[in-house]
Amino acid sequence: MDFPTTFLALALILVLATAGGEAAVRLGQPAVLGELLVGIALGNAHLFGIHALEGIAQDESIGLLAQMGVVLLMFSVGLDATVGQMLRIGPSAALVAITGIAASFALGWLVAALILPAAGRPVHAMLGALLCSTSVGVTTRVMQELGRSATPEARIILAAAVLDDVVGLAIISVVSKIAQAAGLSSFGTLIGHFGKAAALLVGALILGGVLAGPVFRLAARLQTQGVLLAAGLALCFVSAWFSSVIGLASIVGAFAAGLILEPAHSRKFVERGEPSLNVLLKPIAGFLVPIFFVVTGMRTDLRSLLAPGALALTAALIAAAILGKLACAIAVRGRVDRVAVGIGMIPRGEIQLLFAGALADRRIFSAVVAMVLVTAVVAPAALKARLRPRLAAPARAT
Amino acid sequence: MDFPTTFLALALILVLATAGGEAAVRLGQPAVLGELLVGIALGNAHLFGIHALEGIAQDESIGLLAQMGVVLLMFSVGLDATVGQMLRIGPSAALVAITGIAASFALGWLVAALILPAAGRPVHAMLGALLCSTSVGVTTRVMQELGRSATPEARIILAAAVLDDVVGLAIISVVSKIAQAAGLSSFGTLIGHFGKAAALLVGALILGGVLAGPVFRLAARLQTQGVLLAAGLALCFVSAWFSSVIGLASIVGAFAAGLILEPAHSRKFVERGEPSLNVLLKPIAGFLVPIFFVVTGMRTDLRSLLAPGALALTAALIAAAILGKLACAIAVRGRVDRVAVGIGMIPRGEIQLLFAGALADRRIFSAVVAMVLVTAVVAPAALKARLRPRLAAPARAT
Repeated sequence: MDFPTTFLALALILVLATAGGEAAVRLGQPAVLGELLVGIALGNAHLFGIHALEGIAQDESIGLLAQMGVVLLMFSVGLDATVGQMLRIGPSAALVAITGIAASFALGWLVAALILPAAGRPVHAMLGALLCSTSVGVTTRVMQELGRSATPEARIILAAAVLDDVVGLAIISVVSKIAQAAGLSSFGTLIGHFGKAAALLVGALILGGVLAGPVFRLAARLQTQGVLLAAGLALCFVSAWFSSVIGLASIVGAFAAGLILEPAHSRKFVERGEPSLNVLLKPIAGFLVPIFFVVTGMRTDLRSLLAPGALALTAALIAAAILGKLACAIAVRGRVDRVAVGIGMIPRGEIQLLFAGALADRRIFSAVVAMVLVTAVVAPAALKARLRPRLAAPARAT
Repeated sequence: MDFPTTFLALALILVLATAGGEAAVRLGQPAVLGELLVGIALGNAHLFGIHALEGIAQDESIGLLAQMGVVLLMFSVGLDATVGQMLRIGPSAALVAITGIAASFALGWLVAALILPAAGRPVHAMLGALLCSTSVGVTTRVMQELGRSATPEARIILAAAVLDDVVGLAIISVVSKIAQAAGLSSFGTLIGHFGKAAALLVGALILGGVLAGPVFRLAARLQTQGVLLAAGLALCFVSAWFSSVIGLASIVGAFAAGLILEPAHSRKFVERGEPSLNVLLKPIAGFLVPIFFVVTGMRTDLRSLLAPGALALTAALIAAAILGKLACAIAVRGRVDRVAVGIGMIPRGEIQLLFAGALADRRIFSAVVAMVLVTAVVAPAALKARLRPRLAAPARAT
């Protein structure tokens, strides 16, 4: 699309995201649910003869804005937490992540083996591997809407989701290599991939943690406007790039960048009357984050749900996906809402769609799309219902 | 470029724009000058054997972010002004615009006729037409940096630049048709194009002015977060799209959208403690506006300045461009810094490059690129020097 058309498309997305979010809030649901549903409606308008919108979901520039939205969402959530807090809940989060991965992998494999016995073990393993990674964007947004980003539940989910991403991608990459008939090159590769990504991530965290102080002190001495925002965004974008170069999701890097930055880094700016980084990011995220959820919805092709003979597989895969992550609740330690953690781990997303697309089996793809759709839509509603009774304020979030 | 690479490129642009802006401010120049020069350096790094940056200026997504930057810059400047104020200075601004256009057209034609006598009258007319439109982004940014966006000088420049855009594009489109040997289809077309664009713009202003009140009152009753920002951005983007559909620059529509919106429209939001639209836009513009100026600089190909035999034409065209708009000073009425208005009208930009590219004469293209470069770089420095003695505050802008 040319620039003017893209502007028109963005205006449409903004207006409909607001309308969808409003409808969801009025029905007692999180706004993100309305945005996802608006996206699904827009992305499938061609089923009802409306073809004008077909270019939007595929447009690269809008895709970048959407990706920037989720990256900034994770960055701003990371800003609210510290490396210390994450390390303290690390063991607990690791237990949650491992439990969810093990249960999801086992259930996915079981479902595939029972319903598609002829597909062969590599495909069974692949379906198990596909269920491992959580898509943490939806849960993060719901927690933010409810003003609960800083709760132990939210932090455990975030830390576990980061581990999920590292481990889950490692599992998928190994299993998919096996599925491509490369044979059992195997457990060594899995450990290697996992070790490399984890080591690089930890190295970047340490390096970033050491450098952030001096860099932001230097930045505070500049006289141009907007230095704090430019420095914060640059760090976030570089981290997003780095984590995707080492094979992780870009949101993991963005979250880590937020973790590194402490309020102390913007103190000098705040002392002289400038807004803090969190305040500056809010309108940017407010503009871009809904674009991410609408575009995510738009990429769900409802026609692919209609693959013949997929119904049993779809239903079983959805059940496996939900139960596999609800199992996380067992692993939660301390005075924390265990079920809320389990629900928060349920949503699946981009990674699943990406690898399912590569499987080239229309039934499996259809089932995975439905699983992503249902988990992304069910989790926000369930999470809000679970957490609402404990909220002091009414529906309006802050 | 894929998303991670784009993130890396954006981080690079943000860091270098900050460094360039800082260097400019330390040397007593506007930050925008540093951003433009950083862009020129980045865009021509291949001349020094650095090829890694070549994709950035051509990347569509970064181009969209840059365009969004200048659109939001003009929108936020429009927010600071009202339709009433613009109408009051209308006659004065019209005089300024017409004087600048007449002088630029005459001088451009004269220069072409003297230096390229063999090129023929259509080409001479085209060079005159090319000089008509002001590129108002640079001046707007300088005025904002100096905290002078709300001065009579800034308002006259803005209003005159909008008229420039309408009349200038009409002249170019007619003259370029003639230059393409279509014959003198002519004065009627010119008036027709001008009349159509002006009528549509006025119609949209009236319609928008009537609808904005009810729409924003309705929006204030919604319960989701970020409604004010979404509504403001949607209006801005729709207007930008509309003005480019009717053949004007998208920044004209964005500016008009800002004009329509009065503080009264966000009063309900502000009363309940939400930030005003201006406050919300500031970080978004702070992120995107420098990208526009860096990318603008990047698109200046220094090699094209080296076309053989272009030196006399280049020098004469630069002189014509500067004198043609300084002539505006004669037309300024009232207690206003006439010279500042003339200087503010000098910068040329995208429109000139676009149409010069279509002329397919390497010498002319080279001269136009140099003219755009020099006017964009000279005007901010001259404007700041002219306005500085009257500033209460020191270099640091607010």
